[in-house]
Amino acid sequence: MSDRRRFLHKCTLAILASAMPGLPALNAFPESSGRGKNNTSAGKTILFQGDSITDAGRDRGHYYPNDGRGMGGGYVRMVASTLLGEEPEAGYRIYNRGISGNKVYQLADRWQDDCLQLRPDVLSILIGVNDFWHTLDFNYQGTAETYENDFRDLLKRTLNELPDLQLIIAEPFAVAGGSAITEKWEAFKPYQQAARRIATEFNAAFIPLQSIFDEALKHAPASYWAPDGVHPSMAGDYLMAQAWLKAMRG
Amino acid sequence: MSDRRRFLHKCTLAILASAMPGLPALNAFPESSGRGKNNTSAGKTILFQGDSITDAGRDRGHYYPNDGRGMGGGYVRMVASTLLGEEPEAGYRIYNRGISGNKVYQLADRWQDDCLQLRPDVLSILIGVNDFWHTLDFNYQGTAETYENDFRDLLKRTLNELPDLQLIIAEPFAVAGGSAITEKWEAFKPYQQAARRIATEFNAAFIPLQSIFDEALKHAPASYWAPDGVHPSMAGDYLMAQAWLKAMRG
Repeated sequence: MSDRRRFLHKCTLAILASAMPGLPALNAFPESSGRGKNNTSAGKTILFQGDSITDAGRDRGHYYPNDGRGMGGGYVRMVASTLLGEEPEAGYRIYNRGISGNKVYQLADRWQDDCLQLRPDVLSILIGVNDFWHTLDFNYQGTAETYENDFRDLLKRTLNELPDLQLIIAEPFAVAGGSAITEKWEAFKPYQQAARRIATEFNAAFIPLQSIFDEALKHAPASYWAPDGVHPSMAGDYLMAQAWLKAMRG
Repeated sequence: MSDRRRFLHKCTLAILASAMPGLPALNAFPESSGRGKNNTSAGKTILFQGDSITDAGRDRGHYYPNDGRGMGGGYVRMVASTLLGEEPEAGYRIYNRGISGNKVYQLADRWQDDCLQLRPDVLSILIGVNDFWHTLDFNYQGTAETYENDFRDLLKRTLNELPDLQLIIAEPFAVAGGSAITEKWEAFKPYQQAARRIATEFNAAFIPLQSIFDEALKHAPASYWAPDGVHPSMAGDYLMAQAWLKAMRG
């Protein structure tokens, strides 16, 4: 509610400002080709990083900012659509660089190209479910400690290059009752605790997705929010997108 | 704002109702497989019909209700995600049956399978841009009168079978400055006027998309909202989805 009010207030200010002489006019966006591409350099660059939940089937050939085909079909798309639709004057440049199956060390492997060189103002990271899951399914040897240390190193490296970065860390989650979630997932909790510690340590906004999905389970079962317990449905995407927008807008 | 309040109020009522003995419990959704599939038959069936703007690259092999892969990447996805996310107890069954390139007579050709047999409670139709555009590009011979008559016949046939249908008609639109929009598009206006007349005649909720995009052009150019003037960007999807939700919720 207050986010919405803040947004409307911001719109009013933007509209008033644009009507005042000597200030930048509306319609400041240069013409550009491509579906929804916006080449302005005025606004914040927002980068989404993560695994399949972030990737959500994006077309990796479409890597320009604000390109609908490169945004995937998940929570990132809904966030991007909302920010671009509600704040046309903001000049956001939004990138999705999630890659299905990634663990935190795989983010590190591609960090120069897929984060640092994009010079984000806002960096959102959702990572960790595969750091645990692949110990069950793919004989991956990492532990919660590996995850936490790798995550910490990655963020130190990032903030070293981008000291003014606004950091958003989304909690990795598992939706109870989902087809992939067994009693073994009790051992996932230390990864979630590590993500929360890391967020505190780096003064990041933290999105408590586990409690958001736990709350949602009071209204419909896992099959409704995330059938396998890991990958959200459209309804789950909505919950994530709303929580993300709340985190970014404070 | 009032929509959001109405929603919260509705949620509160739903939560109170579920806590009262003798009333249906929460978590009433049966378990089901598939990404976000919801097999409950309790709620409204909502059907989206139209052309490429509605289709938006949906996977036509995924034809079950509420299936994210079958919902495309456009305004329908955002509406579906919002309705399913905000109202998990509503039991909505949402179908996208838009097909790229369709004109109104092509809806009629597939109406038995793609509308009547689905027995929608809410039918949303966005059709008309190709009925005009294809007279420029594909030597299509139909006129605004053809469009209006075909549209009227289609709706008569529909209401004959589904007399209690809630009908939503979205205005076909062209965003000035888009790469496909030339001065010839002045002749598109009679199609838009026909859509509005049809909506009045059939007591449908009407979504005035042309004025919504015209208003948006005060804030950013066509390249931002719909680069070719016909197919919306993610920002354009947002405008459409919000307008749709407002129309449905009254």
